[in-house]
Amino acid sequence: MKSVVIDNGSLTLSDRDTPAPGAGDVLIAVRAAGLNAADLMQRLGLYPAPAGWPQDIPGLELAGEVIAVGEGVDHSLLNKRVCAIVGGGAQSSHCVVPAEHLTLIPDNVSYEEAGGFAEAFTTAFDALVRQGKMIANDRVLISGASGGVGTAAIQIAHALGAHVIAVTRTNEHHEQLKKLGASQTITIEEVTSIERVNVILELVGAAHLNAAQHVLAPHARIVVIGVGGGGSTAELNLLNFMGTRATLTGSTLRARSREEKAEVIAHVNQVLLPLWQNGKLKVHVNKTYPFEHAGAAYDFFAERGKFGKVILSIS
Amino acid sequence: MKSVVIDNGSLTLSDRDTPAPGAGDVLIAVRAAGLNAADLMQRLGLYPAPAGWPQDIPGLELAGEVIAVGEGVDHSLLNKRVCAIVGGGAQSSHCVVPAEHLTLIPDNVSYEEAGGFAEAFTTAFDALVRQGKMIANDRVLISGASGGVGTAAIQIAHALGAHVIAVTRTNEHHEQLKKLGASQTITIEEVTSIERVNVILELVGAAHLNAAQHVLAPHARIVVIGVGGGGSTAELNLLNFMGTRATLTGSTLRARSREEKAEVIAHVNQVLLPLWQNGKLKVHVNKTYPFEHAGAAYDFFAERGKFGKVILSIS
Repeated sequence: MKSVVIDNGSLTLSDRDTPAPGAGDVLIAVRAAGLNAADLMQRLGLYPAPAGWPQDIPGLELAGEVIAVGEGVDHSLLNKRVCAIVGGGAQSSHCVVPAEHLTLIPDNVSYEEAGGFAEAFTTAFDALVRQGKMIANDRVLISGASGGVGTAAIQIAHALGAHVIAVTRTNEHHEQLKKLGASQTITIEEVTSIERVNVILELVGAAHLNAAQHVLAPHARIVVIGVGGGGSTAELNLLNFMGTRATLTGSTLRARSREEKAEVIAHVNQVLLPLWQNGKLKVHVNKTYPFEHAGAAYDFFAERGKFGKVILSIS
Repeated sequence: MKSVVIDNGSLTLSDRDTPAPGAGDVLIAVRAAGLNAADLMQRLGLYPAPAGWPQDIPGLELAGEVIAVGEGVDHSLLNKRVCAIVGGGAQSSHCVVPAEHLTLIPDNVSYEEAGGFAEAFTTAFDALVRQGKMIANDRVLISGASGGVGTAAIQIAHALGAHVIAVTRTNEHHEQLKKLGASQTITIEEVTSIERVNVILELVGAAHLNAAQHVLAPHARIVVIGVGGGGSTAELNLLNFMGTRATLTGSTLRARSREEKAEVIAHVNQVLLPLWQNGKLKVHVNKTYPFEHAGAAYDFFAERGKFGKVILSIS
């Protein structure tokens, strides 16, 4: 197989042995793989892949075709169009994935779009619904709304009946965020002027959370899954947490066990897949690069202020 | 009735009309009422009683005898020895309490001891078990272990099979804390040298929590219910919360609705009452004052470094 390989900070396309699917796994011919902030960190040596996954092939999400199944896997999966999150190794012509981690791609969705679905939508869904206990009519503040996870979170929260307040660094992209389902779009400086919220999804970090903690409704749930844009040391008013009986939960998806990821994905397939099929959820692709030009794709991804996913297409 | 009354920061004993129990309530002839830090704050005008409770009669816990029952209340409660948490008004010869908030005092326990049971043990139980999801074999760090709630928490955690690490400001009282069930007693400076913990009960505030956050086990639960001794602005490392998938919950008991308190007390009666009956839980009374000398009792309570409850006895 051909794979994007991290070699001392640079990206090369290298030949590797195509792995065989083990018991319970499938082999996927990858057609598209989305880029994520974690790939940039991994390229810099800051975010190693968890054990059991390729250590030097980046990529956390993919879409492709099942071309072989391991022992115990239902043969009806062969030739199916699927997408998945993986612990690493997605940016490759082939990838082995646990069968219970797959989501079937809706008929009307392209591989490019599907290649940008799994990581952002699974992450946003787990944070909002499984960690943050979001329910219909909750007021949900999404801090860092214009990134991949943020735009997925807006669509999920809106589709599930919540009232979405999208918070961004500047007021760019506000029209697009409203089209995705945000009822209100604000910059972080405006956060203290809004009504209190039931759920905060924190994707930026301390700088945003320090401000957003002032608008907690009783029993508010804060879920922190990113600190890259705002620093990691938050100054939190514990008396305010006591008075509102609020909860803060930190979370990551990548390092979870196979079994735990399977639970999340079963929940995604139950709740999000029907919404994706009927067009309530949509992956917005900003730009697609052939995986031979991964370096250019990473550089473009690193630029601030863009909107939508960056995808590697693999042929 | 005679009641301790807060009048512009001073405490007087005043005559008030004895209230009649409403539907669902009982009237209690109070025999003993424990002091709590909240009483001192209320005396200073900093912690008003919630709506529906006496505003100028302090006291959050009492023990006494049921002498009248309101409409709909089982008459078999008459003459029973009971204790309860209340929203205010416990430091009085009589007090009206919802029937579903009562705990029956074990036969071998005095009114003085029982007058110091409800607030600390209910608070500690709610924080450890209902908020913190503590289970047997958890490693539980109790920050502020030598106070009323702390000593109750040690006994509860130990009786329920947890491994208790008691954290104090100085190393005084360490022998007594071990007798209550602490496996390990440390000062806060020593906290980074211990093995990781599953639950932190934070009774001191930011100064302790800033140190204790370094020993979170995966899925650790931090419950913050007091900040009086350590300040309210904590500096929390969000990356550490993400990596351990830890949760921080702020909580208070006093302002909860009648229904919500009834749920907590039903749980206390189910789990803690048998442990109290068989001597696994014990209220340690430091000193008892007649309620005519409430001012002296408050002054003694305010002194640092004491061990055990301060009780007003009411005859």
